[in-house]
Amino acid sequence: MKLLKDLLEIQSVSGDESPMQKFLINYVLQRMHSWKVLPKVYQGENFHDCILLKFGNPRTAVFAHIDTIGFMTRYENQLISIGGPELEDNTLLCGQDSLGPIFCRLKNIDGELFHDLPRAIDRGTCLSFVQNVRIDEEFIQAAYLDNRLGVYNALQICEDLEDGWVVFSTYEEHGGGSMPYLLKFIMEVAPIKQALISDITWVTEGVEHGKGVAISIRDKYIPRRSFLNKIIALAHESGVPFQLEVEDAGGSDGREIQFSPYAIDWCFIGAPEDHVHSPNEKVALYDLASMTELYRFLMSRL
Amino acid sequence: MKLLKDLLEIQSVSGDESPMQKFLINYVLQRMHSWKVLPKVYQGENFHDCILLKFGNPRTAVFAHIDTIGFMTRYENQLISIGGPELEDNTLLCGQDSLGPIFCRLKNIDGELFHDLPRAIDRGTCLSFVQNVRIDEEFIQAAYLDNRLGVYNALQICEDLEDGWVVFSTYEEHGGGSMPYLLKFIMEVAPIKQALISDITWVTEGVEHGKGVAISIRDKYIPRRSFLNKIIALAHESGVPFQLEVEDAGGSDGREIQFSPYAIDWCFIGAPEDHVHSPNEKVALYDLASMTELYRFLMSRL
Amino acid sequence: MKLLKDLLEIQSVSGDESPMQKFLINYVLQRMHSWKVLPKVYQGENFHDCILLKFGNPRTAVFAHIDTIGFMTRYENQLISIGGPELEDNTLLCGQDSLGPIFCRLKNIDGELFHDLPRAIDRGTCLSFVQNVRIDEEFIQAAYLDNRLGVYNALQICEDLEDGWVVFSTYEEHGGGSMPYLLKFIMEVAPIKQALISDITWVTEGVEHGKGVAISIRDKYIPRRSFLNKIIALAHESGVPFQLEVEDAGGSDGREIQFSPYAIDWCFIGAPEDHVHSPNEKVALYDLASMTELYRFLMSRL
Repeated sequence: MKLLKDLLEIQSVSGDESPMQKFLINYVLQRMHSWKVLPKVYQGENFHDCILLKFGNPRTAVFAHIDTIGFMTRYENQLISIGGPELEDNTLLCGQDSLGPIFCRLKNIDGELFHDLPRAIDRGTCLSFVQNVRIDEEFIQAAYLDNRLGVYNALQICEDLEDGWVVFSTYEEHGGGSMPYLLKFIMEVAPIKQALISDITWVTEGVEHGKGVAISIRDKYIPRRSFLNKIIALAHESGVPFQLEVEDAGGSDGREIQFSPYAIDWCFIGAPEDHVHSPNEKVALYDLASMTELYRFLMSRL
Repeated sequence: MKLLKDLLEIQSVSGDESPMQKFLINYVLQRMHSWKVLPKVYQGENFHDCILLKFGNPRTAVFAHIDTIGFMTRYENQLISIGGPELEDNTLLCGQDSLGPIFCRLKNIDGELFHDLPRAIDRGTCLSFVQNVRIDEEFIQAAYLDNRLGVYNALQICEDLEDGWVVFSTYEEHGGGSMPYLLKFIMEVAPIKQALISDITWVTEGVEHGKGVAISIRDKYIPRRSFLNKIIALAHESGVPFQLEVEDAGGSDGREIQFSPYAIDWCFIGAPEDHVHSPNEKVALYDLASMTELYRFLMSRL
Repeated sequence: MKLLKDLLEIQSVSGDESPMQKFLINYVLQRMHSWKVLPKVYQGENFHDCILLKFGNPRTAVFAHIDTIGFMTRYENQLISIGGPELEDNTLLCGQDSLGPIFCRLKNIDGELFHDLPRAIDRGTCLSFVQNVRIDEEFIQAAYLDNRLGVYNALQICEDLEDGWVVFSTYEEHGGGSMPYLLKFIMEVAPIKQALISDITWVTEGVEHGKGVAISIRDKYIPRRSFLNKIIALAHESGVPFQLEVEDAGGSDGREIQFSPYAIDWCFIGAPEDHVHSPNEKVALYDLASMTELYRFLMSRL
């Protein structure tokens, strides 16, 4: 869990993902020599703050977004949202500007957002939820489980992955924009027909804590039925506990695969969380474990 | 009309278009040897559930979407929409899940949707309007004229088409997603400068039954004026009855051409219908005939 | 200012930009031989109504959209918007249809739009605000400063530009659609890593007349932080007066760069205006001058 705790402490609000990029690339470069297959690593300015790892001869890619929701300072102590954070009054926020570290509270006054720092903050400074990681026997609770758990899952499956792309994307929480060039690069270097979205979904009346990883039949967008049938059949075969999700809202990096100029099937597979986009996101450790187990099975069998 | 009736009986809700793909590919393979020009056929897993037909040396492509609106089962007898179906209480729906065929009613309780089947339905099952085709001297009325008539029109013009692409797309009713890879393929294999959208539009205060096919000057999006001028001049020259449509909402496969990385002009041309996205869509046979007549003229002259 | 006044008199509502295309190409072809570097000019049907100028070995591209907001006639004296024009009752509008020039007023009756011309206007005719240019010592006021000033700025920097693309795009006010093929062409011919959006923004509580050009840290979309940091550092170094803008709405051609399949950094830099999208858009001449000055500095240093 050391890796997961490290991931949770790093700020990388959409648009400002370079701290997480640096952490991940260091981790990969140090760790990859112990992996079953040594991946080819693609990163640097040509990929902005994204990272791609190519293992063997890929048939399928796993995408995990490394950005988070947050806030940006505007004028006169105003804040505006990045992505769709929960907006509870008095939530603790942190960040840094030219004058030093920032620690303040979110003030939500009839939907208008402010910070309460006595001094002005540089225009355009990103603020994040103050992190508070809580782990017990059953649950992990923290800010930004969405999508630190998806990143963690992607890194776990690197350990013994033989063939596949593992890709760390940016901007997912704020409309996207890295997926199109990532997909173009993948399709030019080692094309794929299938993609799995390693991300965190919602606990709802149909998807509960502790019932296993969720396979999403749809969110706002709809993957192709014949690919879902294949995934679900393999999930049954795997013996890994899973739940089927059916939603009419929400999106993921899968959206940009759907609208890409490539005929790539995609499916969102991830553990469900409660208290979405708040400092108190909560996921059952059992569901996280089944997520990684299912990814391992699928990446070898798809 | 046998072909049209066959088309109307096939379910292919967005995301689950494989039954229609199978029907169409069978029809094309059997029929194409009687066509004036034998097309090259592109289909299969590389194209998901889409089909492309290349006739001669294409200058223009015709796009007809093969998917329909519908519903998907969620949890506890809930339904969610696929595309934007009309939501009248007690509408008859049909489908199939692991337990067998389904025949039930849509219950719309203050905007929340349910089915009334006494048993549970598998999560993520697609349901369609029960089909009821009515044809008299003047009109055809049925579910899914949008876009079975557009598909029918596209197949009619195959009969004597010399140069052009005829393309069957998927997902149009639910945000799209097949057009980008179809356009990429077309532009790599036999590029075009022009596209016509073979789809069905709305009867409004300005577009009436029986006044001929509608040429859309705009919907939510706006084709390039210089291309519209060319189309309208040719339509006048053709002698085919037509109406000019001007709307500020609605979209089509033309939207994805507008936003594609290719400078392709596009225009929506289709018969108007009443009772849009209901089981009782209604189109004048005269307008359908003029649609096919105008497409034949334009495909030879554009 | 002769050039600017000429630009302001030309109608080119989104979708119908050919008059502006013709004016610009004439201007460029006549003027370019006096420029420091002779650009390569790309234009014609393969680029629809867009124009690209390639100077030297580009590292950065400047994009200026040549279309404007406006109105289109529908049925029965109805009008619908193109882009998001201000809708004040009795605003003077002009245009032309098959019967001749049109001069009428906008009637806004509870949000429904009409014209008051005694005769019918051809369906689908574009109407613009009647132009009224007012210039004094401090300000310019007119319709369509957005984006005639951005176009003017782009033409000014052509005078001594050594390396870079200067690109005139279409459709920006109505959802876009030219940027994808412009970017594809640029990336195939002389690729870039950076883009500046030469467009006009809003006077707000944080961005005032006469305080210099605005560098936008975000609108609805968020450029990459590391690129913003580079721009802001260079702006400080330049000594040109500038203001930092932080908004949560609005968009530009930058949006289509963000979602393009290329890892290109982008930033919107432009003078602020009051009375946005009205016939009375107002910009401080000082801010316009600092806009051009900053572009010159950035294009040589980025």
